[in-house]
Amino acid sequence: MQKILRIKTNTKAVLFEEVKTEYAMLGGRGLIAKILNDEVDPKCDPTGPENKLIVCGGLLNGTMLPCTGRLSVGGKSPLTGGIKEANAGGTAGQMLGKLDIKAIIFENKPADNKWSILKIDQDKAELLPADKYVGMGNYALSAELRKDFGDKIGIVSVGVAGERGYRNSTLQVNDMEGNPVRAAARGGLGSVLGSKGIKAIVLDVTGAANVEYADKEKFVAANKKFIAAVKAHPVTGGMFPNLGTAGLVNMINGLGALPTNNFSDGRWDKAENISGEKLAEMQSTRGGKNGHRCMPGCVVCCSNVIHDEKGNYVTSSLEFETIALAGSNIGIDSLDVIAKFDRLCDDFGIDTIETGGTLGVCMEAGKMQFGDGEAALKLLQEMIEGTDFGNILGQGAEVTGKYLGVKRIPTVKGQTLAGYDPRGLKGIGVTYATSPMGGDHTAGNPLGVPTVDPYKKEGQVELSTQMQVFMATCDSLGTCMMILNAPLGEPENLGYFLEIMSGKFDGEWDPDKLFGIGVQTIALEKAFNKGAGFTAKDDKLPSFMYTEVLPSTGTVIDFTEEDMAMAIPF
Amino acid sequence: MQKILRIKTNTKAVLFEEVKTEYAMLGGRGLIAKILNDEVDPKCDPTGPENKLIVCGGLLNGTMLPCTGRLSVGGKSPLTGGIKEANAGGTAGQMLGKLDIKAIIFENKPADNKWSILKIDQDKAELLPADKYVGMGNYALSAELRKDFGDKIGIVSVGVAGERGYRNSTLQVNDMEGNPVRAAARGGLGSVLGSKGIKAIVLDVTGAANVEYADKEKFVAANKKFIAAVKAHPVTGGMFPNLGTAGLVNMINGLGALPTNNFSDGRWDKAENISGEKLAEMQSTRGGKNGHRCMPGCVVCCSNVIHDEKGNYVTSSLEFETIALAGSNIGIDSLDVIAKFDRLCDDFGIDTIETGGTLGVCMEAGKMQFGDGEAALKLLQEMIEGTDFGNILGQGAEVTGKYLGVKRIPTVKGQTLAGYDPRGLKGIGVTYATSPMGGDHTAGNPLGVPTVDPYKKEGQVELSTQMQVFMATCDSLGTCMMILNAPLGEPENLGYFLEIMSGKFDGEWDPDKLFGIGVQTIALEKAFNKGAGFTAKDDKLPSFMYTEVLPSTGTVIDFTEEDMAMAIPF
Repeated sequence: MQKILRIKTNTKAVLFEEVKTEYAMLGGRGLIAKILNDEVDPKCDPTGPENKLIVCGGLLNGTMLPCTGRLSVGGKSPLTGGIKEANAGGTAGQMLGKLDIKAIIFENKPADNKWSILKIDQDKAELLPADKYVGMGNYALSAELRKDFGDKIGIVSVGVAGERGYRNSTLQVNDMEGNPVRAAARGGLGSVLGSKGIKAIVLDVTGAANVEYADKEKFVAANKKFIAAVKAHPVTGGMFPNLGTAGLVNMINGLGALPTNNFSDGRWDKAENISGEKLAEMQSTRGGKNGHRCMPGCVVCCSNVIHDEKGNYVTSSLEFETIALAGSNIGIDSLDVIAKFDRLCDDFGIDTIETGGTLGVCMEAGKMQFGDGEAALKLLQEMIEGTDFGNILGQGAEVTGKYLGVKRIPTVKGQTLAGYDPRGLKGIGVTYATSPMGGDHTAGNPLGVPTVDPYKKEGQVELSTQMQVFMATCDSLGTCMMILNAPLGEPENLGYFLEIMSGKFDGEWDPDKLFGIGVQTIALEKAFNKGAGFTAKDDKLPSFMYTEVLPSTGTVIDFTEEDMAMAIPF
Repeated sequence: MQKILRIKTNTKAVLFEEVKTEYAMLGGRGLIAKILNDEVDPKCDPTGPENKLIVCGGLLNGTMLPCTGRLSVGGKSPLTGGIKEANAGGTAGQMLGKLDIKAIIFENKPADNKWSILKIDQDKAELLPADKYVGMGNYALSAELRKDFGDKIGIVSVGVAGERGYRNSTLQVNDMEGNPVRAAARGGLGSVLGSKGIKAIVLDVTGAANVEYADKEKFVAANKKFIAAVKAHPVTGGMFPNLGTAGLVNMINGLGALPTNNFSDGRWDKAENISGEKLAEMQSTRGGKNGHRCMPGCVVCCSNVIHDEKGNYVTSSLEFETIALAGSNIGIDSLDVIAKFDRLCDDFGIDTIETGGTLGVCMEAGKMQFGDGEAALKLLQEMIEGTDFGNILGQGAEVTGKYLGVKRIPTVKGQTLAGYDPRGLKGIGVTYATSPMGGDHTAGNPLGVPTVDPYKKEGQVELSTQMQVFMATCDSLGTCMMILNAPLGEPENLGYFLEIMSGKFDGEWDPDKLFGIGVQTIALEKAFNKGAGFTAKDDKLPSFMYTEVLPSTGTVIDFTEEDMAMAIPF
C-alpha cells in the first residue's frame, strides 16, 4: 500500500500518512502540482518555512517499462518565484517506487538549525544527524554515505550551493556507479531542500517488494512491443545510443539555433570541436564511454562517461544542454574544459544551464573574454569559495546580469533559456514563454517536427501546446522523454503505450485519457502561478530577441502577447 | 495653461503636450497613479525602458496655501515591484507650479547611454549634456549647478546611488539654502531616473507668472483662518517648530514602539540621548537651528540645520525617522554619528530609513555590533565605494537580510518599516501591510488618535483606512502632512480647507469630494499593483512580528489575512 512520508523538520517528526483517494492517479509532476496547490501559499518565501519540498516518483515508477523511474522534485522555485518540478534519472526514483513511497513532503524549517539526512529503508524512515556531512561536495558526500550505509544505496543530495541557498542549486541523484551526476537541476530546488536542513536522502531497498499490476500479462506483452519500437526509432535507437544528446550539437548548429556568445548568434564555426561526433572520437582513445545507462533497465543509453587525457574519470554525463550553455554560449570549444565545468557543477550542486547562462552575461559585461576557459573556471571557483561576487553568481543569470548592468539577459521568468535560441526554433520560444516552469526546454521541445517551419511563427503555438501537454504527461508518469519519441506521431506505438497504462492501472485508455494527465498538471501549475502573482504579461521572451535579428537565421521573435495567450489554454 | 512635459530619452526629444481633460483635477500622487495606469505595463522591469518616471506637483502647488508645493515623483518601484509615489519639500515643487508644468514624464532609455540634465525655464525646456556632473555626490552637484545656472535655481537630482541603480536610491531636492537635503526617498525611484540617464532637473522660474484662482478673495480669506488654526494647533504650532519631528523620539519611546536593535524591542534606555530635547540643547551651543523652513512660506518650520561640535554645517534636516532607523534601531545613541549618516545618505542619494534597516540586518547577522557607529559608517563607505558587498547593501534591507541569512527582516513588500514598531502602534501595522506603497509611515500614520488603543487590533483597520485616504489626498494636493493635522477631527478647520478648495477650483466642496481624491488615488494604485502580480496575500507584516512578543508592550501582531483584506476596500 503506497504511503506519503511527511517530514516536519521543525520538530523532526517523521510521519507515514495514507494516500488520499484523489491522489491515487497522480504522480511525479502532476502530484507535485496538486500537493503544492493544496498545501503551499503561492506567495510564500521559497526558502522560508511555508514552502515545501516534494520528492516523488512518477505513476509508472517501479514497473518494467524501461527508462522509467525518474525522480521528480518540486516546490516553489527560488529562481522563478513560481511552481517548479525538476526531474532526474539515476537510481533513486525506482527505489522510491520499490519502497512503496508515493511522495516525501519536507516542510517547515529545523528549529535547532541542525542538518539531517533522511534514511529510508523497507522497515522505517528516520532523520539522522548530518553534522559530519555538512560542507561536503556531492562526490565526497556520496563516497562517505556509501561507506556508512553500503554500496547499494540510492542518494539524493544537495551540494554546498544548496546549503548556502543559491538560487541555481540542484538536487543530485547518484547513478548506478554511485556518482552524483544525475541532476534535478533547474529552478534552484536544492536551496529549498537545504532550507529544510536536509543534506541528503538515503534509500535502501533491501528486501523491498515489486510493484503490482492490474493485468501483468497485458503489461508485459505491450511492453515488449513498445521496447522494440523504441529500439527501432532512428533517434532513440540510433543517434542517442551512439552520440548521446551531444549529437544535437551539429544538428542545432545546422538549424542556426545554437546559443553562441550569449545568444548573439545561432551558428558557430567552432561547433564541430564540441560536437557529439568529436566527443565519440575522444571516447575511443581515452577509455570513456558512450551508450551509458543512467538508470537500471534503460534501453536508450544516451548517457556517457568522460575521461581526461590520462584516462581518468572526470564526469558523467556530458549532455547537449551543458555543451551548448558552457560551450558555444561562452565561446569555449574545448570538451575538456566543459567536462571540468560539468564536474564542478555536479560536485558543488549547481545547474549547468543556469551557470553557463550566468557566465554568458559576465562575458557580455566584460568580466572576462568569450572563449576564456580558464577565466570561466575561475568564476566557478568564486562561487565555490563564496566570495561576495560568487554569491551573486549563485543567484543565476538574471540577478548577475542586472547586477552587471547587462541588457541582453537570456532568461524567462528569471531562468536561463536552454540550448536552443528561440529565434531559430520558434516553437520552443512559445514553450519558454508560456510554460509555468519558465525558460525550460524539457517543458515541451518541438524539435524535429517537419510539418512546422522552425523559423516562422505559424503553427508554433499549437505545436508547443501539444508538446507541453506531452511532456507534462511524461513528467507525471516518471518516464524519460527519450522513449516517448517512439509514440509521437506513430499511432501503432502509442497504442502499445495505452496498453501499458491499461495493464498497470486497469480500465480503457485512449489518448485523451493519457494526455489528460498532462492537461490537468499544467492547469494546476497555472493556478499556482496565478496565486503567486503571474499574469499573461509574464509570458514573454527576453526583450532583445524581439528586436535583435539572429544572424544565422535572419529572424526575430514576432509572437504578440495575444499569440502567447493562446498557448496551453486550460 | 498647464502642460505636460514629455522627455523621450531614447531620442532626446523634449515635447510639450496638452493636459488631457481627465487629468485636470488630478495632481501629485493621484496624477502619478493615473498616468502609470494609462501608460506603463505593471509587469515591466522598473529600471528598464518600459517604466516611466513622473515628476509633478500637487493640485494646490503654486497657491498661497502655506506648506504646499511638495514635489511628487513616481514610477514602478525597483524596491517593492509595485507602484510608488514619494514626495519631498524643498523648492522645486513650487517652481514646477510657477512654470505651469503639470507633470514631467521621463520615458525609455538613452540609446547612446549618455547622461543629461533637463533644464527648464519660462521659455523652454532642453536636455543638456551632463558629462561633467556624472559621478558627483548631490552636494558637489548642487554647488556646481548653481555655479553654472545661478543661485536661484531649483534642483532635483540623483546621487551616485541613483546612477548605479541602487534600489534604495533617492531623488534629492534642494532647500532654500541650496542644500540637496529634501529627499523623495522611498522605493528607489532615484534609480529609475538614473536608468533614464537623467542626472538632474534644473528649474529657473525667472519671469514666471503666478497661478490662477477661481475666486481669489474666497481663497485668501479661508487661507488666513486656516493658517491661524495651524499655528494654534499644539503639534504644528508647538512641538514641531520647537523640536522638529525629533520631538517624536521620546513620545514613541514612551509608547514602546521605537524600533530598537533591529526591531527587537520598542523601548530603549538610551533614547534620551537621541531625543528632540537633546537635539535642541545641542543646537543652542553650536549655532545649528531648529524651526527651519524647508520651503518658502512654511508656517510650521519643523526642519532643522545641524552643526558639528566646531560649529560647522553638517546636514539638514535630522528627522525622527532617520534618528529611529539609524539610531535606536542600530543601537547608536550619538546624534553626531546619526547626523554624519544623514549627510552621507543625502550626498550619495540613498534613503535613510532603508539604509538604517539594512544596517540593522547586518548587525543582526553579526557583520558588526549594535551600537558601533564607526562600523556603521564603514558599511556606508562600502556602498559609496561600490564593493560587491556594498552593491548588495544598496539593494536594501530585504535583499541584504536574505543574503546574510537573517530571519528577522523588518520589511513589507521589500521596503523597510519606518520608525514605529507595528506591535506597539497597530494601526500603522495595517497601513504598512495594506498600503500599495509597502511599509511606509507616510501612507497613513494613525499616531495620537486617542480613541483607539494602539496595542489592540480593534478599530485599527478602520483607522488606518481613514488615515490612508487622508494621506493619499494630501499627497495629491501637494500639501505637507504637517498642516493637515489641523483639520483632522476639527470640523471648523476642515471647513476652512473646503473653502480653500472652492476658492481655487470653484464649485461646492464637501468632505466626500475632498477625500474622494484619496479614494480614487488608492483605487488606481491597487489596480496597478494587481497588474504587477500582487494579491491579498502580499498584505502582511514581517512574519516574526506575528510570533515574537515586543518586550516593551507585551504584544504581537494578531491581524488575520481577513482583517487586512478589509482595509482600503475600494
